[in-house]
Amino acid sequence: MNLRIGQGIDYHRLVEGRDLWLGGIKIPHTKGALGHSDADVLLHAICDALLGALSLGDIGVHFPDTSNEFKDIDSKILLKKTYDLITEKGWKVNNVDATLLLEKPKIKKFVPQMQDTISKILQIDLDAVSIKATTAEQLGFIGKEEGVVAQAVTLLVKD
Amino acid sequence: MNLRIGQGIDYHRLVEGRDLWLGGIKIPHTKGALGHSDADVLLHAICDALLGALSLGDIGVHFPDTSNEFKDIDSKILLKKTYDLITEKGWKVNNVDATLLLEKPKIKKFVPQMQDTISKILQIDLDAVSIKATTAEQLGFIGKEEGVVAQAVTLLVKD
Amino acid sequence: MNLRIGQGIDYHRLVEGRDLWLGGIKIPHTKGALGHSDADVLLHAICDALLGALSLGDIGVHFPDTSNEFKDIDSKILLKKTYDLITEKGWKVNNVDATLLLEKPKIKKFVPQMQDTISKILQIDLDAVSIKATTAEQLGFIGKEEGVVAQAVTLLVKD
Repeated sequence: MNLRIGQGIDYHRLVEGRDLWLGGIKIPHTKGALGHSDADVLLHAICDALLGALSLGDIGVHFPDTSNEFKDIDSKILLKKTYDLITEKGWKVNNVDATLLLEKPKIKKFVPQMQDTISKILQIDLDAVSIKATTAEQLGFIGKEEGVVAQAVTLLVKD
Repeated sequence: MNLRIGQGIDYHRLVEGRDLWLGGIKIPHTKGALGHSDADVLLHAICDALLGALSLGDIGVHFPDTSNEFKDIDSKILLKKTYDLITEKGWKVNNVDATLLLEKPKIKKFVPQMQDTISKILQIDLDAVSIKATTAEQLGFIGKEEGVVAQAVTLLVKD
Repeated sequence: MNLRIGQGIDYHRLVEGRDLWLGGIKIPHTKGALGHSDADVLLHAICDALLGALSLGDIGVHFPDTSNEFKDIDSKILLKKTYDLITEKGWKVNNVDATLLLEKPKIKKFVPQMQDTISKILQIDLDAVSIKATTAEQLGFIGKEEGVVAQAVTLLVKD
């Protein structure tokens, strides 16, 4: 059994007038994440973890924010493209564990939908995709609701 | 061999008039961590890593800070409850590695006691529990001693 | 197969009048990282991940910033010393994945050189060392270019 560990982290500003996409789901909120794509910080951290596990560069290398191709793009497409890069090399995702760092809103009720969305793209069981969340206890830019951060780890396997 | 990777991160404010619990140990300091439980940021990050590895939700789902049951609770009890959730499913902890991000105090001399406490709860060897620490070099809310953060990763195994 | 997971995180201030060392490479920039050694935040995070995987303490324990021995030291020497500690115990590095969190400069073109440097020290294939980077989208001390942070994870194996 061959194994690879990967980790990812992503940041986005929270601003008024943008939709808030997290884990492939549009979350009702007064602010949204600013970015070239849909700015789905959770999917971006997962993409980076998957890419990093195989040393394929990072999300900025594959999906540059200077390219029109990725303007306002649905990050689920980026996750699918990332998945394809991995499976082309014969690797499978064992599991993904991620944490959203954001002060508001509570995302608990959206987690099953996020897990469903991500597990289908990555072709793994629902319980191999974990989405957790924590506030920053009003500390720093996360606590002041100026930004949202996500961190993810993954384990890839190859027979 | 089945494997699962997990990661956790937790934040707490540092305030006067509270005890500072880290890794299950009461640390002499002028400030303590604010929270509904004993606010042991290190044990919370480890709980979240363990829960995340099996996609069991996060610490806020299992031990809500709106419940009287968990008011001022010793986080070692939360870690034991988390351990029970994992072993009930037939999984064992392979190892845990964590880092405390805090400006003060130095925790080096308390690390062996933390490792001893955590390894006994998780039923693993002492050297399968790693506790590291770093300052934030006076940067941000950690550097200004307004808060403490912990990050942890874990690997679970099942035959 | 025995496995161990490790994680590391390191912070350094960015100041004028210092060289910027990242991943063992000197990067042309207007600021450099402040520290007792060459303050290579990426190599320090990797050292901590490697040490943490085997519960060997952290970089501050092994290479104290109060020791003249490590004043202005090249962090590649610290990584080599860390590697020796691991191999002495019969462990090998499976892979390392790391992310640099910094606003400027772009490090993409230096990544192959960093991978080459690190993989040679750790005696692993080039594609078992992954270096990613992200900005903090102008948020917090990273976004204000006051500091640089690196996070790393690793998987160690022993037959």
